[in-house]
Amino acid sequence: MVSCYVMTDEALIRRTLVLAARARGRTSPNPMVGAVVVKNGRIISEGYHKKAGTPHAEAIALEKAGEKARGASLYVSLEPCCHKDKRTPPCTGTIIAAGIRKVIVSMEDPNPKVAGKGIGELRRAGIEVISGVLEDRARILNEYYIKHILTGRPFVILKTAMTLDGKIATPEGESKWITGEKARRQVHRLRGEVDAVLTAIGTVNADDPSLTCRTARGKNPLRIVIDPRLTIRPEAKVLCRPPDTILVTRKAGGSAKKGLLRERGITVMEHDGDRPALDGLMRDLGARGITSVLIEGGSSLNASALDSGIVDKVMFFIAPKIIGGRHSFTAVGGALFRRLADAHRVVRTTMSRWGDDFLISGYIEN
Amino acid sequence: MVSCYVMTDEALIRRTLVLAARARGRTSPNPMVGAVVVKNGRIISEGYHKKAGTPHAEAIALEKAGEKARGASLYVSLEPCCHKDKRTPPCTGTIIAAGIRKVIVSMEDPNPKVAGKGIGELRRAGIEVISGVLEDRARILNEYYIKHILTGRPFVILKTAMTLDGKIATPEGESKWITGEKARRQVHRLRGEVDAVLTAIGTVNADDPSLTCRTARGKNPLRIVIDPRLTIRPEAKVLCRPPDTILVTRKAGGSAKKGLLRERGITVMEHDGDRPALDGLMRDLGARGITSVLIEGGSSLNASALDSGIVDKVMFFIAPKIIGGRHSFTAVGGALFRRLADAHRVVRTTMSRWGDDFLISGYIEN
Repeated sequence: MVSCYVMTDEALIRRTLVLAARARGRTSPNPMVGAVVVKNGRIISEGYHKKAGTPHAEAIALEKAGEKARGASLYVSLEPCCHKDKRTPPCTGTIIAAGIRKVIVSMEDPNPKVAGKGIGELRRAGIEVISGVLEDRARILNEYYIKHILTGRPFVILKTAMTLDGKIATPEGESKWITGEKARRQVHRLRGEVDAVLTAIGTVNADDPSLTCRTARGKNPLRIVIDPRLTIRPEAKVLCRPPDTILVTRKAGGSAKKGLLRERGITVMEHDGDRPALDGLMRDLGARGITSVLIEGGSSLNASALDSGIVDKVMFFIAPKIIGGRHSFTAVGGALFRRLADAHRVVRTTMSRWGDDFLISGYIEN
Repeated sequence: MVSCYVMTDEALIRRTLVLAARARGRTSPNPMVGAVVVKNGRIISEGYHKKAGTPHAEAIALEKAGEKARGASLYVSLEPCCHKDKRTPPCTGTIIAAGIRKVIVSMEDPNPKVAGKGIGELRRAGIEVISGVLEDRARILNEYYIKHILTGRPFVILKTAMTLDGKIATPEGESKWITGEKARRQVHRLRGEVDAVLTAIGTVNADDPSLTCRTARGKNPLRIVIDPRLTIRPEAKVLCRPPDTILVTRKAGGSAKKGLLRERGITVMEHDGDRPALDGLMRDLGARGITSVLIEGGSSLNASALDSGIVDKVMFFIAPKIIGGRHSFTAVGGALFRRLADAHRVVRTTMSRWGDDFLISGYIEN
């Protein structure tokens, strides 16, 4: 409870964001939302959305408040919903029925079914509405949801772990444990927050990763492996379920192996030509309700992902080691390179330390 | 003046270090030294060593103090000298003659001609001596001097400017302006602090750098170019003097061109075989009184420098750009690579921002 602090709108919206983030990684395809009911300068009740299909943050907070909600203010990190084609009733009706006098919203819901209509409905019911408090933070909190609802495609994070001289593997393919334990734990946490992890067969054959989330509270992401020639070994760890795995392979050939994989519960997605169009793959994943994808691949996949324009955010873990070698694999390889003037630009960068390792993160500029 | 602050030994030694650093880049081959005379809780006088061949910090401070020095304490960032084979008189005699009662020293002078003997002489004269206050800081301040006086070789800094994916140039050799203005200004400042800058002919032919220090107060470093086959173009900017340039080339052949270069005032150093042994080159440069070398080369020189074990410190400037390409040049190339277990380890790392760019610095672990 923050009632002993100064109860500014900002402080209370910050509280809704903290509440919202409690369900990080568990609300997809819904956004994370937190709500606080305030009356006479005191927090009466709080709530946050826990999982798609379960009650919304506002509904939880208002139910807890009961009769006390009459005449109170509601703080909520995202515009209350007003559409009816879903499992839960629209929040606007609940808010109006509860007798709330004022609603303070961090950001409008970009969902075209809401997009200001929720706020409009509240105002028409005589409720005062303020919108845009700490909006930047709310946008970052729900960046996966926003990208998915607006474009139908998942928010894509490219993560790599490299040496200080930009290498992710020796020419012999040695690449495991470049970074230390704290950086690796961060990656596991990240896996627990995204809907899917994407890799390519080169990494699977070289490292045999599980691509699971090994933190206490994290859920496992769906695993997606790009394997055009279907060379995956049947004993590969990514084929052990749960969690679920999608194998992306070319249409031509391999029907016997595809059949066996399907029998094991693996989803086989087929593409024309030699390599999948990553943009089309993202569209297909988005249509399946995947709102976020973490790319954990090698030099080539990283290069294709960046060049196909699907990447929203990059996370470069940097270990304080130098291995050198002009034939070592670098973080971003590929046949093509960019001129310096055309380089992918990374903006809104941040830098942090994880044990001995560094992390530089940022967003790819469009 | 710090007399209004609490005058702890640490605060006063910190002051000597600040004074010492005023002459950064101008005392070589001498160390930077600062001194403060304190009496009755007040700073009476201060001094720092400005340039080799001119008075030492202690002598300046004591001369300023005059008769007031009698019974006072002297704070000095490095053990006072006691040897006589140089242009200035030993400081121990000056201190004793001035009637100083107590001397507080940050670190002993590693110069074998001093190495505790200065402190011993003061103690034998009845002066109380405390040594080791903020010694770590004093060691970092004079890391160039310490390496040179103990090993006869210069302290070597390898600096590179790369993209986030570890590239220093496109496959076509485009490499200029990877980092922004603030990072480049830092490099100029660094050039003003070292005795010499080392590069290789590849970089000279690709970028035609001046390798001068273009900051207001900085002095230009000596420039050293490794050019085994003597392919340097006569109009290359590094051949325009001042500052001085040393060309390192193989003994065999090119005598006409060598003659012309020598006529232009270029020092030509010759080596056996196809490539110079970098370790031997450092020994030769150390013998010439070069206490610090900044390597500003390409992929190959960086790799050879690291593998020959001459590098003490690395500075990786990282621009928030990604160019990709498996044939792009990386920060550390070379024919060889290290297994992860044998990687050069970078310790005592620090991380900072310069405009949009990042800098990761650290020391190569022996």
